[in-house]
Amino acid sequence: MTTASLTFAGVVPPVATPLLPDHSVDHTSLARLVEYLVDAGVAGLFALGSTGETAYFTDDERVAILTTIADANAGRVPIIAGAIELTAPRIIETARRLTDAGADAIVTTAPLYTLNDQAEIADHFRAIAAAIDVPLWAYDVPVRVHKKLSLELLIQLGTEGVIQGVKDSSGDDVGFRRLIAANDAAGRPLQLLTGHEMVVDAMLLAGADGVVPGVANVEAEGYVRLFEAAARGDWDAARSEQERINRMFDIVFQPAGLSGDATGVGAFKAAMKARGLIDHATMAGTVTPLDDAVVDKVSGVLAAVGLLPVATV
Amino acid sequence: MTTASLTFAGVVPPVATPLLPDHSVDHTSLARLVEYLVDAGVAGLFALGSTGETAYFTDDERVAILTTIADANAGRVPIIAGAIELTAPRIIETARRLTDAGADAIVTTAPLYTLNDQAEIADHFRAIAAAIDVPLWAYDVPVRVHKKLSLELLIQLGTEGVIQGVKDSSGDDVGFRRLIAANDAAGRPLQLLTGHEMVVDAMLLAGADGVVPGVANVEAEGYVRLFEAAARGDWDAARSEQERINRMFDIVFQPAGLSGDATGVGAFKAAMKARGLIDHATMAGTVTPLDDAVVDKVSGVLAAVGLLPVATV
Amino acid sequence: MTTASLTFAGVVPPVATPLLPDHSVDHTSLARLVEYLVDAGVAGLFALGSTGETAYFTDDERVAILTTIADANAGRVPIIAGAIELTAPRIIETARRLTDAGADAIVTTAPLYTLNDQAEIADHFRAIAAAIDVPLWAYDVPVRVHKKLSLELLIQLGTEGVIQGVKDSSGDDVGFRRLIAANDAAGRPLQLLTGHEMVVDAMLLAGADGVVPGVANVEAEGYVRLFEAAARGDWDAARSEQERINRMFDIVFQPAGLSGDATGVGAFKAAMKARGLIDHATMAGTVTPLDDAVVDKVSGVLAAVGLLPVATV
Amino acid sequence: MTTASLTFAGVVPPVATPLLPDHSVDHTSLARLVEYLVDAGVAGLFALGSTGETAYFTDDERVAILTTIADANAGRVPIIAGAIELTAPRIIETARRLTDAGADAIVTTAPLYTLNDQAEIADHFRAIAAAIDVPLWAYDVPVRVHKKLSLELLIQLGTEGVIQGVKDSSGDDVGFRRLIAANDAAGRPLQLLTGHEMVVDAMLLAGADGVVPGVANVEAEGYVRLFEAAARGDWDAARSEQERINRMFDIVFQPAGLSGDATGVGAFKAAMKARGLIDHATMAGTVTPLDDAVVDKVSGVLAAVGLLPVATV
Repeated sequence: MTTASLTFAGVVPPVATPLLPDHSVDHTSLARLVEYLVDAGVAGLFALGSTGETAYFTDDERVAILTTIADANAGRVPIIAGAIELTAPRIIETARRLTDAGADAIVTTAPLYTLNDQAEIADHFRAIAAAIDVPLWAYDVPVRVHKKLSLELLIQLGTEGVIQGVKDSSGDDVGFRRLIAANDAAGRPLQLLTGHEMVVDAMLLAGADGVVPGVANVEAEGYVRLFEAAARGDWDAARSEQERINRMFDIVFQPAGLSGDATGVGAFKAAMKARGLIDHATMAGTVTPLDDAVVDKVSGVLAAVGLLPVATV
Repeated sequence: MTTASLTFAGVVPPVATPLLPDHSVDHTSLARLVEYLVDAGVAGLFALGSTGETAYFTDDERVAILTTIADANAGRVPIIAGAIELTAPRIIETARRLTDAGADAIVTTAPLYTLNDQAEIADHFRAIAAAIDVPLWAYDVPVRVHKKLSLELLIQLGTEGVIQGVKDSSGDDVGFRRLIAANDAAGRPLQLLTGHEMVVDAMLLAGADGVVPGVANVEAEGYVRLFEAAARGDWDAARSEQERINRMFDIVFQPAGLSGDATGVGAFKAAMKARGLIDHATMAGTVTPLDDAVVDKVSGVLAAVGLLPVATV
Repeated sequence: MTTASLTFAGVVPPVATPLLPDHSVDHTSLARLVEYLVDAGVAGLFALGSTGETAYFTDDERVAILTTIADANAGRVPIIAGAIELTAPRIIETARRLTDAGADAIVTTAPLYTLNDQAEIADHFRAIAAAIDVPLWAYDVPVRVHKKLSLELLIQLGTEGVIQGVKDSSGDDVGFRRLIAANDAAGRPLQLLTGHEMVVDAMLLAGADGVVPGVANVEAEGYVRLFEAAARGDWDAARSEQERINRMFDIVFQPAGLSGDATGVGAFKAAMKARGLIDHATMAGTVTPLDDAVVDKVSGVLAAVGLLPVATV
Repeated sequence: MTTASLTFAGVVPPVATPLLPDHSVDHTSLARLVEYLVDAGVAGLFALGSTGETAYFTDDERVAILTTIADANAGRVPIIAGAIELTAPRIIETARRLTDAGADAIVTTAPLYTLNDQAEIADHFRAIAAAIDVPLWAYDVPVRVHKKLSLELLIQLGTEGVIQGVKDSSGDDVGFRRLIAANDAAGRPLQLLTGHEMVVDAMLLAGADGVVPGVANVEAEGYVRLFEAAARGDWDAARSEQERINRMFDIVFQPAGLSGDATGVGAFKAAMKARGLIDHATMAGTVTPLDDAVVDKVSGVLAAVGLLPVATV
């Protein structure tokens, strides 16, 4: 792996996937979004993650999405791409196509649908890493995978060189703190990113290397400032920035009674459209779109924190 | 759909996938297994389900497996094939390939990985049904999918003609009884199969149309007798047959401390090999194989119920 | 234990607790309810269970409730009383008071609030059995206790003579079938009652000794007929009776959007009041009462199955 | 409520309950433990919580425990006592006895065993607050109660004056951060304590008012230093102290294969005994004691962080 030293420390937003009203990919908006994120100073791009609605796309569509992201990025920051599939043989097929299309690293989860123990999950990651030419990351997201990657598993895979890092969306702050300590004790084989975008200041204080914030699709500059403040040890500034971001993050609490996917990504897309970052708030697959009243509430939250109107991108 | 009247009432075993020691598909054993099942009098074949370890195979491998099953079956009984994938667009791709390879019907679950509500799940099934040329079935297996298909959803989809039937592995006997009653009240748009292979007598008394028993890969004749006894109202005979089967089913409680997939399918394959139905007990993917001591215990259970040695198939 | 041979086979309804509008116990209605149940031919009374809203009462209130039940019963059928408390020392205090007040047996669950393993739970039951003078039963209700009593635990405790029986509300029909088989293999140390009131025919076919049906508070005669049909092997009659009962059981699906306690017991009490079995449908504690529209729906279900108006009790 | 201004900001350890080998309360060790904690500079004492094994004691025992704590404390710091019981009527009985015995505030959870919604849980807290003479706190511990107290519920109860504060052991750092923000927006009606003892630095940065750390029973001085560092904005010092504490906290990961209660409190008691803070490591109720090998490992962890031998208390 020639890219073994590749790092994703800092702000690595999960890139949303703008869609046209007919549900096909809006490559124009997607390229504009990438331009916005890179200009804002992000450290990398996390393509085809949950925020990118990756589960709803075929592999052909995934390749097209990644190609646009890679073209727009033009090598300025590293790209890690989600290969979300059931098991190793299927993940490897997807990962190879994404690597060919420009991914600098691959991230995946424990197997889906199957009933495996931690030893089988470890072999799953080993099989994938052995079959691809770029670094592999582990994505720990029990709310979607319904399995937790154990601390022992992650440290073992890091020490073996199977995985280069972890994106933690486990919802378990104590577990993440223990992972940080165990990683330190093992000589830091892993880079550790948190997906808990509302407590990034606290997780950086605890020792996280970076963050994968979905809401950075709406406004990325704040997370960059937050990360820089933390890096220089100005924790009061980091906290203030986090608290400002969290007021913006209130957009995801405006929808009521909808599914998790409709609510979270739905609010992001509505806000992105309101700020002119994308042209349509169309959702992927069969996900219910937000109605006008909710979209108005989302805009209201943005206006209240001074994020509307947005300057021309 | 020219096959709209196709029925899967009766015993519809989920066909296991025999593997060679190098983990490639053992097509010879697979064809022999299909011959055994059809000879035993099953009403249909459930290909590429959980017992078939379908999640661990690429689509190319799935097509090869289904082709062998279809060729060995030679049209004697209908074949329903699992298209297990993340979401509708990906399921449709898989389903079309399986239909081309000989599936008479397709069965799939709610989306995996995503966070959807029942309305989105309904649209998911509608999108799939609209894109394939054979009947669609719903597979309710919360232990793997982590979502329960609601009674209202299933009856609605049945009434619309979107789904033809349900395979229920929900672990919820009360919910299944309510589904039977609601289906009756709606004019029986759905065929209802239970996956609870240890209580088939009770579920048939309650009104199930049939059963998808994994352990029929080890011995199928018992379930055929059980179903026939129930069909003629001889519930004492049905219960006796179930109790005999359940003593055989003890094979799945012999492994200890292994994963769900290693335990269940592992015991089936060890028993199938012991009975000469397949040549190797190799497990798919990274699933841990049973050790010799457990394999001996499995054989011991079979011997205790008179299923060893088996007559030449 | 002089009552070691006491049996609760058959229909053992969990007695509801009628309340006056000021939330005090309506002893007049309670005595009338007991009279109704015993007249209907039940085999025993299950006092102070979940349907009896026992968790919402102080021990003084529990003693008063049990005293009224025991007085009204006048020794005609055995009474098993729920001692629902956190842990053994507290359960023993409650159980002794209930035994003094007339309980012929005590039933309790695994500890609440604590984090115990199966060995600790076994010792919990042993400590309780050693401290009381009547038979002990185990109540397996994971939806409330959030722990499942394992098959091995139950058979072990039965074999030791620690528990005399099990009330199974586990929602796990396969587990219950395995428990029946294991109990048979162990010489039947346990009596096994199902709480799954919608599948009693099926569970009796599978080998249950009886049933604890909450809806018997609304109409008990049907379950008595069902049990008698099953006892004489007339499974078609048992199923028909079950299906009729299940149409009545639709009362519990009339409330929408309320808590589990408001919904289930709320529907029972509304129906009992409609049938004149109790004077008020008041709920215990802070449980939300059903509104008039839902009460009308409940009455509509009863009328549709011919249970309204009811003859004077 | 004359004590309405009472505050529990800072370090408020949940006092463990030392036991004699015969399982009766070791009042001598308990008084010595209280002396140790108060001397170390804690801001209050949290009596009869999960770490205090309160669920395993009768109310008479609870009163005796609280009396010893109150006597040893002699009014130096405020005492909040857990009234852990099923529902409001039973909690009120316990709470009144504890208040009479010296509790300055009462803390309790959502109802146990019952199936309630948030509106019913709100009324539960209202009923309790109305019936006691000291401030009421809400304890959010889903791992034991299996219900989460919603943000809206807590802010509403705080605004009404029903509860004075929250002890958060929800395992949900994002939810806690949102609670802090909502409490600020509402004018800070609530005091907010975290039970996540491994991430106190991070939670204080996020805005927590204090912490309830079980491991403070082993060493309390560290948390006092941590809190003081955070109070003066020295986040690097706070983090270093937390990291040192976390190395000590490794004691709870030494037991393997035991229950949650045996593991956590078991490790605390073994360490307390090793440090001479209590005389016996006896566990309450039927909880499995740690074996000698594990106790040695616990001592090894303490020695590695320089906490053995301890100076005479």
